[in-house]
Amino acid sequence: MKKEENKNLEVCFSPANFPFYENKENSIIVIVDILRATTAICTAFEYGVAKIIPVPSLQETYKYKQNGYLIAGERDGKVIDGADFGNSPFNFMTENIKNKTVVITTTNGTQAIEMAKNCAEIYIGSFLNLNALCQLLIKKNKNVIILCASWKNRFNLEDSIFAGAVCEILQKKANYNLNCDSAMASLDLWLLAKNNILNYIEKSSHRHRLKKLLLDDVLEYCFTKNITNTIPVFKDNYLIDISKL
Amino acid sequence: MKKEENKNLEVCFSPANFPFYENKENSIIVIVDILRATTAICTAFEYGVAKIIPVPSLQETYKYKQNGYLIAGERDGKVIDGADFGNSPFNFMTENIKNKTVVITTTNGTQAIEMAKNCAEIYIGSFLNLNALCQLLIKKNKNVIILCASWKNRFNLEDSIFAGAVCEILQKKANYNLNCDSAMASLDLWLLAKNNILNYIEKSSHRHRLKKLLLDDVLEYCFTKNITNTIPVFKDNYLIDISKL
Repeated sequence: MKKEENKNLEVCFSPANFPFYENKENSIIVIVDILRATTAICTAFEYGVAKIIPVPSLQETYKYKQNGYLIAGERDGKVIDGADFGNSPFNFMTENIKNKTVVITTTNGTQAIEMAKNCAEIYIGSFLNLNALCQLLIKKNKNVIILCASWKNRFNLEDSIFAGAVCEILQKKANYNLNCDSAMASLDLWLLAKNNILNYIEKSSHRHRLKKLLLDDVLEYCFTKNITNTIPVFKDNYLIDISKL
Repeated sequence: MKKEENKNLEVCFSPANFPFYENKENSIIVIVDILRATTAICTAFEYGVAKIIPVPSLQETYKYKQNGYLIAGERDGKVIDGADFGNSPFNFMTENIKNKTVVITTTNGTQAIEMAKNCAEIYIGSFLNLNALCQLLIKKNKNVIILCASWKNRFNLEDSIFAGAVCEILQKKANYNLNCDSAMASLDLWLLAKNNILNYIEKSSHRHRLKKLLLDDVLEYCFTKNITNTIPVFKDNYLIDISKL
């Protein structure tokens, strides 16, 4: 019997580096923007949103608004004018989104989705759905690239330690190869952070950015593991919960 | 008396991310390509080379060759055709380079120098000149960005832990602010690596790439600290030892 080859797991620290990943078209891409886009998206699906349309530009977002869509968005951490929601996960903990379609634009997260658009399979990851996501990845048994949204194409700690958490699970439970130095670094950083994530992340620059904007009330929530089984998947230009596919 | 502000230290994990660093024109840029370009460049100056002209393209390199220059170069770890030297540091441990000008092109290192070309001050860093370099930076007392050459615009461990070693010294000895998440991650990775660098780097992908090409005889040398006081500086399109400025 032919021994099955272990699958590869790679981590990409920012959209600017993504073009240099050679096998991206044949890999599963997991988009991560812990503070706060992908955490917010997972929350919205947990609260029953039907679809989320991620849009990179403000202009396009406002076109949707004119056509009667609910819109959610921020730039540099601040809610955009005329938006129905910001991108705080707390904004989506409401009955108002149930069975609705919401258009979302954010500084980093939606740009990362845009970047990966041509890849075959794209999922949304956050600490909220960590285990559900990893179970799915293991079941799929394909090569995986974690694409960190980062902060304006600069490495950030929160997305990277999440990538490290996925590395730990996929390596332990399914013998994935950590196939690049960024995967190995992510795992090392996660192992430093995991016993007290909030304490570790205290030093991160984005945490201070949020604090300045008085938005750091979401921190504890953004690093809470496994409170939803939703796995948002990107299909035909929108996100939908995998159970509704 | 006005209290002097602490200077900032940032780390850029690859040339692809460098355009997103806002203060680069007013910062000192340190270029790092531990395996092997910047280690080789420091070695060449230690052995008395007069000037090194870093050139990003092969075409331009061959033009210099036609004009009688010594050329050194590799692509993907292999010596380019017609080169007088590869980019192994061992190639430059020779009297043949004394007081000569050498043109060099490499997969990552010379591209990083090209990227930083318009910045005011550019130095070449490696473990070989770590302390000398840090002493200079502290004396200069300006903001610093460590630009890792990386591997084809993907994060690598060896350049990042070097960046972390600089972070440790500049933070301890001169109270530099580690002003971005990549600086903080570099320092954490360096603290994991520093007591046994070769053991830590064993897992890196480039180390395996070199091994495959049977070039990993240089590893121990590339991680040897403080064996030269040379600090190559980029001026008018060439590198020269700072003492010759």
